[in-house]
Amino acid sequence: MISLNDFLKSVSINIDSYIKEKLVGEPPDFYESSLYILKAGGKRLRPALVFASGYAFGGSEKYLLPFAAGVELLHNFTLIHDDIMDNDDYRRGVPTVHKLWGIPTAILAGDLLFSYSLYLPLHSCDDFEIKDRCIKASKKLAWASLTVAEGQALDMSFEKKESVSEEEYMNMIEKKTAALIESSAYIGATIGGADEKDLMHISEFGRKIGIAFQIVDDILGIFGKEEETGKPVYSDIREGKKTLLIIRALALSNKEERNKLISILGKKGLGKEEYAVAARIIEELGVLEYANIKARNLAEEAKSHLDEIKGSTNKEYISLLKDIADLVVRRKK
Amino acid sequence: MISLNDFLKSVSINIDSYIKEKLVGEPPDFYESSLYILKAGGKRLRPALVFASGYAFGGSEKYLLPFAAGVELLHNFTLIHDDIMDNDDYRRGVPTVHKLWGIPTAILAGDLLFSYSLYLPLHSCDDFEIKDRCIKASKKLAWASLTVAEGQALDMSFEKKESVSEEEYMNMIEKKTAALIESSAYIGATIGGADEKDLMHISEFGRKIGIAFQIVDDILGIFGKEEETGKPVYSDIREGKKTLLIIRALALSNKEERNKLISILGKKGLGKEEYAVAARIIEELGVLEYANIKARNLAEEAKSHLDEIKGSTNKEYISLLKDIADLVVRRKK
Repeated sequence: MISLNDFLKSVSINIDSYIKEKLVGEPPDFYESSLYILKAGGKRLRPALVFASGYAFGGSEKYLLPFAAGVELLHNFTLIHDDIMDNDDYRRGVPTVHKLWGIPTAILAGDLLFSYSLYLPLHSCDDFEIKDRCIKASKKLAWASLTVAEGQALDMSFEKKESVSEEEYMNMIEKKTAALIESSAYIGATIGGADEKDLMHISEFGRKIGIAFQIVDDILGIFGKEEETGKPVYSDIREGKKTLLIIRALALSNKEERNKLISILGKKGLGKEEYAVAARIIEELGVLEYANIKARNLAEEAKSHLDEIKGSTNKEYISLLKDIADLVVRRKK
Repeated sequence: MISLNDFLKSVSINIDSYIKEKLVGEPPDFYESSLYILKAGGKRLRPALVFASGYAFGGSEKYLLPFAAGVELLHNFTLIHDDIMDNDDYRRGVPTVHKLWGIPTAILAGDLLFSYSLYLPLHSCDDFEIKDRCIKASKKLAWASLTVAEGQALDMSFEKKESVSEEEYMNMIEKKTAALIESSAYIGATIGGADEKDLMHISEFGRKIGIAFQIVDDILGIFGKEEETGKPVYSDIREGKKTLLIIRALALSNKEERNKLISILGKKGLGKEEYAVAARIIEELGVLEYANIKARNLAEEAKSHLDEIKGSTNKEYISLLKDIADLVVRRKK
């Protein structure tokens, strides 16, 4: 059996050295700013999904690697741009790209990663014996990029809205977060040669752990520890972000609780004790438990889709995909 | 014979209605901000090159259209992001996207167009009889996007440099401006089935008119009329941009002229008469004539590459490509 930890480590080393080799150009300090967030850390969850799902269906490393790099580059591009849009100062425990190099360079650094995210996969198509698989995987990557943009636009539109329903929120995170995670699993399986029915199952697996991933992010945005998440404690309360937990807490609270929450959410100058009061109200309303259960149920549903796969697969990697689903809900950062 | 004017008009109608049909999604006002600059005008020069070069080699409309839209979307994406980076208030005679919707939405609007610029071409690959042509054309598009980003990074790095050589400048515009124009011609010919030698000639054609295009832009940035360019008169002098004309004027000027130029370039608060003084110095140094001749020579060299093409071509469209080369140097906006 392959351990998930060893697998993630090997994916990390593989992806990082491939990207380092391929992303070379001028001016050199521009490439440095583009690669800075990638080098600052990250779990390489998306490339791990490309590989695990690809190996499960018998794909080989040389075809999977450019796409695994592609999804990671696409992810890092969205992080750099989102940090500008959300005016975030820290990411992965270090200052964000626009804080260090300014907004113009940060915009362009994101654009460069975005370019490479499709350039590298497309350039690998020549090596594919079955070109259609390369085209299909590239199409999914391009779909993911536009869907993530729509998701971010919806998220930003929420800031101006008085209230957001849980349904609207779930639609948003499906685009903003789940689309690329779903695509990662889909791309691996496509390169491995999965048929349409199995692709549907692997997509559903990815989509569900993608939604779970965001719900856990929302939990960590309030209840995460600064030294683990790399973000200031209570950050979502401080920013007044309309996350699942906050939307639901506002919906379930009585008048007194709601007034208290509203007096704290998004007020940046308050002390930690004040934010802690809001976090306690959210917890006491049962919303933390609700979110935890929801994320765990999604992970279970995701895993059950793997059991529906009919094509021949490498069971070791199916089991690894299940481990990834568990990691997504178990993670503390 | 097809007239260039009629051809550009039909390309415009074709591209605009295709993009309008395909770029539909949520939230609707986000799509509106993304399409705003495209609707504000533009010459559709790049899609015209895809079509003319494609038709010259016998390509058919249904294969060319998604790529013609792709190069135009990629171009508009770079305009939106460049306007943020350069802090420009006007484009095509209307306020820029970030002036109307703010920087976050403008960043994301560019990202959406970038996504579609590859999404639409890649989704058309299924229809291609010869998949390799679609992959090859898509690869070139992705190459163009990363090369344009490098070019913009070089351009921004010039702002911080004391002096820029003409050679450094030419390298920058080859990336920032010529790469996408070259790619447009290359993509059309690729889809039409040109062989490697002819692709080299059509690329050189595109590269040379691309460089000429930027030189003419630099001329118009100083000597263009506000009502034609849609930009404030003397804008490059006001901004102190390191363009071909300004780099060369500084190199050729005597001490007195240089001091006068330096006292005006990039000083935003001066009156029109002051900027006119700088423009006159530039003209009297023979730099305007030098730039005009350089652009015209490039266009002639570009056209001579078309005469080197060995494969069977539709002469009407080769002649149209020559008309496009002439338009590039003749244009007033």
